[in-house]
Amino acid sequence: MHESAAPRAAVVAAALELFQDQGFEQTSVEQIAKAAGVSRSTFFRQFGGKEDVVFADHEVLLGQLREFLAEGHDDPWVAVCAASESVFAHFAHDPDLARRRYQIVRQVPVLREREIITVFRYERLFDEYLRGALPGVDPLDAVGFAALVTAVHNHVLRQLLRGKKKVPLSTLQTALADVRRRYGVGEDAAAGAPDDVVVAVFPRSMPIAEVTRRLKSELD
Amino acid sequence: MHESAAPRAAVVAAALELFQDQGFEQTSVEQIAKAAGVSRSTFFRQFGGKEDVVFADHEVLLGQLREFLAEGHDDPWVAVCAASESVFAHFAHDPDLARRRYQIVRQVPVLREREIITVFRYERLFDEYLRGALPGVDPLDAVGFAALVTAVHNHVLRQLLRGKKKVPLSTLQTALADVRRRYGVGEDAAAGAPDDVVVAVFPRSMPIAEVTRRLKSELD
Repeated sequence: MHESAAPRAAVVAAALELFQDQGFEQTSVEQIAKAAGVSRSTFFRQFGGKEDVVFADHEVLLGQLREFLAEGHDDPWVAVCAASESVFAHFAHDPDLARRRYQIVRQVPVLREREIITVFRYERLFDEYLRGALPGVDPLDAVGFAALVTAVHNHVLRQLLRGKKKVPLSTLQTALADVRRRYGVGEDAAAGAPDDVVVAVFPRSMPIAEVTRRLKSELD
Repeated sequence: MHESAAPRAAVVAAALELFQDQGFEQTSVEQIAKAAGVSRSTFFRQFGGKEDVVFADHEVLLGQLREFLAEGHDDPWVAVCAASESVFAHFAHDPDLARRRYQIVRQVPVLREREIITVFRYERLFDEYLRGALPGVDPLDAVGFAALVTAVHNHVLRQLLRGKKKVPLSTLQTALADVRRRYGVGEDAAAGAPDDVVVAVFPRSMPIAEVTRRLKSELD
């Protein structure tokens, strides 16, 4: 097999199968390279090491989310939720592969720790995006919303990864709509205004900075 | 100096001072042991290694919180917040030591990663406690509340660790009361539920900044 015929995804799939069959520690880079039909040097060009194979998807996803968020969005709170949904959709697309990956990560402490650090990178990305996209937002609201979206996302994703049953995207969407409601930035937060007097109706829980942002975009 | 005269706290303080002065990587266990007046073997009996010195407080705190939560509490949501407050109070008690520790952790990637993993242990402790203490609770609510408390806690603590200024415990308490309000489990659950609606009426000609200012002073 010519090397170019084995893209990163094929190496990942071959590696996860070997990790599952014979254990992460017991599997060598040589075995992975051989199973995927690439040379050892190609493997190391594609991945820094064995661990990186397990987290290859996350590197790609984090890059994609960064691009997606940078596009600019009318509602940054919704954009963060859309980003979370796209990660879920990625893993739900091939649940068997995702479950295999999950089982391996669970069994190897060093991978488990790296998973926690990876999750934190999503949380920080969301936090930083919100602070940039919402000038004047209370950092506490950005930090909290980012943490809550990430935690809710992981919980729903874990249901998919642990069980045999299907977990539809709508389960996550419902949970994320609930997060927006807790922050008072749900769909149900707009009001019309007469000529001279503005009547603004908003949930008590909406951050003041978000009230300001919405008032501005309504009134300007 | 007799070894028993140097408790763990003294070894931690001596180590952090050395790490700050000459760098984490450049400091040897021998140097720490000498500075603290203990033998090398005593050091290794007290700590697994150099890294563990930096996280010694967290190990103690996690153990204390586990005991505290196990005592049983009328309001588990409040108990989680009280646990968070006690961690904050611990670091606020000796802010200089806490800041020194923070500066070292920030500069050394391996410590930074371990910090993230340590933070996650608090989050998981809170999550597991809530699920145990509140039979029938939606796991999504336990996961979300635990994540939000932890994120809010870290944000406020970071303000203390980064700045020279004092950050009173009340700053954290206010932020945690807000978390409980978002989850509808605040003291004012009846009077001020998260679904409360604010109706603000103001002249179209009022500057948005002034609207914000008035809203803030009314609602805070």
